[in-house]
Amino acid sequence: METDALASWNDGAPKQSIIDFVRRVTTAGGPDFVPVPDRIAVFDNDGTLWAESPLPVQLVFVLERVHALAPQHPEWKEKQPFKAVLENDLKTAAASGMAGLIEMVMATHVGMTTAEFDSIVKDWIATARHPRFKRPYTDLAYQPMLELLAYLRARDFKTFIVSGGGIEFMRSFSATTYGIPPEQVVGSSVGTKYQVRDGKPVLVRQATVNFYDDKADKPVGINTFIGRRPIAAFGNSDGDFAMLEWVAGGTGARFALIVHHDDADREWAYDRHAGLSTLARGLDEGPQRGWTMVSMKQDWNRVFAYEAK
Amino acid sequence: METDALASWNDGAPKQSIIDFVRRVTTAGGPDFVPVPDRIAVFDNDGTLWAESPLPVQLVFVLERVHALAPQHPEWKEKQPFKAVLENDLKTAAASGMAGLIEMVMATHVGMTTAEFDSIVKDWIATARHPRFKRPYTDLAYQPMLELLAYLRARDFKTFIVSGGGIEFMRSFSATTYGIPPEQVVGSSVGTKYQVRDGKPVLVRQATVNFYDDKADKPVGINTFIGRRPIAAFGNSDGDFAMLEWVAGGTGARFALIVHHDDADREWAYDRHAGLSTLARGLDEGPQRGWTMVSMKQDWNRVFAYEAK
Repeated sequence: METDALASWNDGAPKQSIIDFVRRVTTAGGPDFVPVPDRIAVFDNDGTLWAESPLPVQLVFVLERVHALAPQHPEWKEKQPFKAVLENDLKTAAASGMAGLIEMVMATHVGMTTAEFDSIVKDWIATARHPRFKRPYTDLAYQPMLELLAYLRARDFKTFIVSGGGIEFMRSFSATTYGIPPEQVVGSSVGTKYQVRDGKPVLVRQATVNFYDDKADKPVGINTFIGRRPIAAFGNSDGDFAMLEWVAGGTGARFALIVHHDDADREWAYDRHAGLSTLARGLDEGPQRGWTMVSMKQDWNRVFAYEAK
Repeated sequence: METDALASWNDGAPKQSIIDFVRRVTTAGGPDFVPVPDRIAVFDNDGTLWAESPLPVQLVFVLERVHALAPQHPEWKEKQPFKAVLENDLKTAAASGMAGLIEMVMATHVGMTTAEFDSIVKDWIATARHPRFKRPYTDLAYQPMLELLAYLRARDFKTFIVSGGGIEFMRSFSATTYGIPPEQVVGSSVGTKYQVRDGKPVLVRQATVNFYDDKADKPVGINTFIGRRPIAAFGNSDGDFAMLEWVAGGTGARFALIVHHDDADREWAYDRHAGLSTLARGLDEGPQRGWTMVSMKQDWNRVFAYEAK
């Protein structure tokens, strides 16, 4: 008997819908056959491939970098939102909104070369620990989704991340955590500038927002980076709605899936009321649109990658 | 005896340098071995993979689209550079410089959906003929470079185009002409906007320059799209200099190559004095930097793809 490649998925409609879709598009001569080059699948990252609670991982990185860099910035003691972060007053920090967040990103993510930033992220992700599970954040990748990525790739799908997260932040761990190489990661970015320093060419990260890969700009990012419409998309919030709609709206067999965080015991239960990640339109319209709705509680018998070790 | 995979390359230093480099980076256990995921090679398009004379192909497309769309734009009869183009007075049209070119690109490349633009380009490229060779432009891909692309891919390199040309223009023929899929094409782009029209999601091309992938921005484009430094780069003009320098400047075995157009009989002879494509710094510094200089006249026994049919 064949080992179940999707062993962490309980038998049920979602698992069956995945298996059926993949069988249809890979059956040579069948009506829904899709040639290998067009087998493109796109995955949101935060909340879809790994945990995003109690805070998205890159936001934790930003906050910890503010603490780490504070000695070089005495002015932050009097300047919001830095002052509040240094006082661990996240409520006040959050009041600064997107403008405050961008200010903190620019204070922690730019000015260095791309190689230096890659090192900073790799060092951080190797040592940082999740507050609830006391494990590296990369251990909190979802085991069912890792199995799904491998299942698709074994059937000649090319898997991409399409996330609002920073593209170079994610690229620092995407290959080792998800088996997704840097060139298959689409995300938000700052500008970079080419310079030759002492005969060595470098790219220096600039304090400009180059692209914010969220909501209606996810299809834009997909088109820019991938240049064709994927046949399968996986998300968990309304930030992914346009991406799911764009993918599902193509001709031929299409697959769209939403991961619903409804498991407070093993992970978290949130949807309409989450702060940074809201799922409302997707919950309301997804089922009518024929999208596959995954209940973490019902459909996954294991949640985190470390539980499969 | 093995068939020569690089049969259109004459024996000589350039051919040998390619073979030696590839052998070094693919020899397991050797000092210069490069794991498969890092075997990234980037190619300029115009003048490197196909002919760019007497005019770059996309510029011919722009000019022919101006003629085709003129009936819908009576005002062009009195407006430069359109007036000059419609009168086939390219000298006057060229005097409008980059601003005039961008105006013509915006008049011919935007306003439609990405799918519509793809159809327009595919239709044009299937029917347009090169003025000297009376053949489709895609027949004027360079046979030695097609062999090189296949040679590298057979040794587990991933091949990318990195060109100042329009990303969606190139993507319309890159897979069939070069075997390079859309997601491995990096180029210049206009903005796009996501819309749902009568329930159908579309991306509409906007009259904004999103990215101009030339000169010092070629390494920027490489970093944005590929997310790692390639180990081999191929170009033909000073627009490729920064890309060649960026790639050659990494650690470990590196390869940089310049195609020199010095064959007036079979193709064209130009370098320092070409209008849109100038090779001066590359000719001066390339050899000292250890870059491979290819003479089309000396090193290629066949030039165009159609000659190998």
